Amino acid sequence: MMPTGFSLDEGAMAAAKERLDRLTKPVGSLGRLEELGIRLAGIAGVVPPPIPSRPVVVVAACDHGVVDEGVTPWPRDVTAQMVANFLEGGAAVNALSREVGASVVVVDAGVASPLPAHPWLADVAVRRVTGNIASEPAFSRDEAAALVEAGRKVARSLAAYGIDLLATGDMGIGNTTPSAAVVAAVTGRSPQEVTGRGTGIDDVSLARKIAVVERALARSGPPRDGIGVLAELGGGEIAVIAGVVLGAAEVRVPVIADGVISLAGVLVASLLDPAALGVVVAGHRSTEPGASAALDHLGLKPLLDLDLRLGEGTGATLAIPLVRSAARVLSEMATFESAGVSERDTSG
Amino acid sequence: MMPTGFSLDEGAMAAAKERLDRLTKPVGSLGRLEELGIRLAGIAGVVPPPIPSRPVVVVAACDHGVVDEGVTPWPRDVTAQMVANFLEGGAAVNALSREVGASVVVVDAGVASPLPAHPWLADVAVRRVTGNIASEPAFSRDEAAALVEAGRKVARSLAAYGIDLLATGDMGIGNTTPSAAVVAAVTGRSPQEVTGRGTGIDDVSLARKIAVVERALARSGPPRDGIGVLAELGGGEIAVIAGVVLGAAEVRVPVIADGVISLAGVLVASLLDPAALGVVVAGHRSTEPGASAALDHLGLKPLLDLDLRLGEGTGATLAIPLVRSAARVLSEMATFESAGVSERDTSG
Repeated sequence: MMPTGFSLDEGAMAAAKERLDRLTKPVGSLGRLEELGIRLAGIAGVVPPPIPSRPVVVVAACDHGVVDEGVTPWPRDVTAQMVANFLEGGAAVNALSREVGASVVVVDAGVASPLPAHPWLADVAVRRVTGNIASEPAFSRDEAAALVEAGRKVARSLAAYGIDLLATGDMGIGNTTPSAAVVAAVTGRSPQEVTGRGTGIDDVSLARKIAVVERALARSGPPRDGIGVLAELGGGEIAVIAGVVLGAAEVRVPVIADGVISLAGVLVASLLDPAALGVVVAGHRSTEPGASAALDHLGLKPLLDLDLRLGEGTGATLAIPLVRSAARVLSEMATFESAGVSERDTSG
Repeated sequence: MMPTGFSLDEGAMAAAKERLDRLTKPVGSLGRLEELGIRLAGIAGVVPPPIPSRPVVVVAACDHGVVDEGVTPWPRDVTAQMVANFLEGGAAVNALSREVGASVVVVDAGVASPLPAHPWLADVAVRRVTGNIASEPAFSRDEAAALVEAGRKVARSLAAYGIDLLATGDMGIGNTTPSAAVVAAVTGRSPQEVTGRGTGIDDVSLARKIAVVERALARSGPPRDGIGVLAELGGGEIAVIAGVVLGAAEVRVPVIADGVISLAGVLVASLLDPAALGVVVAGHRSTEPGASAALDHLGLKPLLDLDLRLGEGTGATLAIPLVRSAARVLSEMATFESAGVSERDTSG
C-alpha cells in the first residue's frame, strides 16, 4: 500500500492561530471552532483555509455473511432497498444533505442484490456478501486491499472533480457486528465493551451478537496490519471508508467521519498510515459503544452528540456546516484593527 | 403583561411521532433530531412542521453601569464598536449567519455611545447605560417592562415579515455580570456557582466579579416576579431577549437561545409566562457556569457543546441547520411503504 505522504502543515496552523487571535472576539472564545479552523489550515496548508463549497457524502454499502448468525432483525434485502432509497433521495442522509448543500454518492462495496446503474453509484465490489466472520475471513487479503484502493480512488476522483469536503457514510444490514469486531481488534477492548444494539435489538439478541464477535476474534487470532484486520473481520464499506480516508489525505481534503462503521474504517486507515488521521474530523458521537471506544483510541473528539444511531453518514453530514463555519471565521471575520474595535486592557 | 396564550399542540406532536416511526430508519435512530422535530410540530401545530427558510438572529445590545466595578477588562466603547462591526458584517455572528443563511438584526437596548441609523438596527432604548446593580437597580419597573414589550414587538414584527425562525444574541461589555445575578436570583444558585470568567478574566477579577454579584443580590433582596428581577439585576439585552421569547410564543415561531445572557432572558420569560418556554430550543452549552445552571433549571438540553463563550448569538446561529434538519426529516424522508423498503422482523 502506497503511503499518502500526508502531514499537517505546522506553519499554516501557527499562522491560523495567530490570525484567530487578531479577530474581533476574545482570544479562544470560539472554542472548538477555533481548533477546527487551525486544523483546516493544517490540512490545506494555507491561511485562511478555503471554505468548502462542494461537499460530498460517500455512502459505502455492503452485505454481510455474519447476518446468518441472527445478529439483526432486518432482512438482508434492506441493504439494496436502502441504496435505491439513497439514489431516489428519500433517506435521512438525503434530507440532511439537502439541508447542508451536500451531494450523496453511493459506493457498492458488495451488496448482495443487483443494483440499478445510476450516475451516483460506483460499483467497486470484489464479491457479493462477505464471508461469515464468525467462522471464516470476510475477504482474502487481496480482496480487502482492492477495496481500500477503490475507496482511495473514489476520494481522489471526487477531489479532481472539485469536491473539497468529504463525509463518510455506510449502509449494510448487520454491519455493526463486523465494526465491533474491527474496533475490538484494533483498540484491544473486549467484545462486551464495544458491541452495541445497532438499530435496536433486545438483550437476547445483544448477547448473541457479543458471542459472535467473540468467536470472530478467537478465530482470527491477534490483530495484524490494517489489511489483515479488514480481511479477517471487516466489511466492504469499512474497507472503502478506510480507503476514502487515505485518498482524502493524498489530496489534502478534510473528511468527516460518521459513527461506528465509519470509525472502524478510520481505525483501519490509521493502521495503514497514521499520518492520514490528520484529515479526519469526527462528526458525532453515535450511541454505539464501539464508536466511543474508537474515538478514544484515535484521540478524536466529536463535534456533535445527538444520540444518533442511524449511520448512512447522517451524523457526519450534520457536522458539515460546523466545518465550513470554522473556515468561514478565518476568512470573513474582521480584525480589531480593520474594524476599529478597541482591544482589552491588558495593563492590569 | 399580556399572556402569550401559547401552548404546544399535543395532537400535532403525537402525529409527528407516529410519522417519524414510519420513515425509512429504525425507530428513534435519529435521536435528538426526532425530539426536536416533534417539538417543532407542537410549535407549528401541523405535521410536518414547515422547514424554516428565513431565520433571523436578533442581537440585543446594552451598556452596563456595573462595568464601573471593574468586572471586565474591556472598555465600554467596545459595545458600540461591535454593534458597528455587526452592521458591517465583520463579527463572528455575521460569518456564521452567512454560513447558515440567516440575517442579523441589532436591537439597541441601551448602548451608551451614539449608533448610526441603519436599516437593521432598531433603537428601543429607555436609558443609556443601566444603573450599577452593585448599588442601585438597573431600571425602574416601567423601564424594564417597556424593554420586554419592545422585544416582544420585535419578534412579532419579524414574524409578520415572514421570518420563521429566531435566534437570540447579545452584545454588552460587562453583561455576564448581570446575567449571573439574574441566573442566581431565579435559580437560587449561589453567585459563586453561576459567575464565570466571561471573555476570560483572571482569578483576582473573578473574585471581584463574584463579590459584585453577591452585593447586587444582597441589595435587591429575594427575587420577585420577572419584571422585578429585570429591574433590580438585569440588562437591556436580557429584557429584550425575554421579550423576543414571549413574542415568538405569541406568533408560534421557534426561538433558539444562545449562551448565558440569552438564557438569563429565557429565565425571565419563564417567570412572565412559563408556557412560552415551549418555543425555546437551547442552541448550545456555553462554558459559562451560569449557562449550565440556567439550562438545568429550565430543563433544556442544548444541541451543541463546542466550548463557545463569545455570545453575539454565535452558538444559537450554529444550531440553525440542526433545527431545519429536524423539520426536513419530517417533510422529506420516504416512508417504508413509499420507498418499498422491508420492515424489521418483529416476530422473534
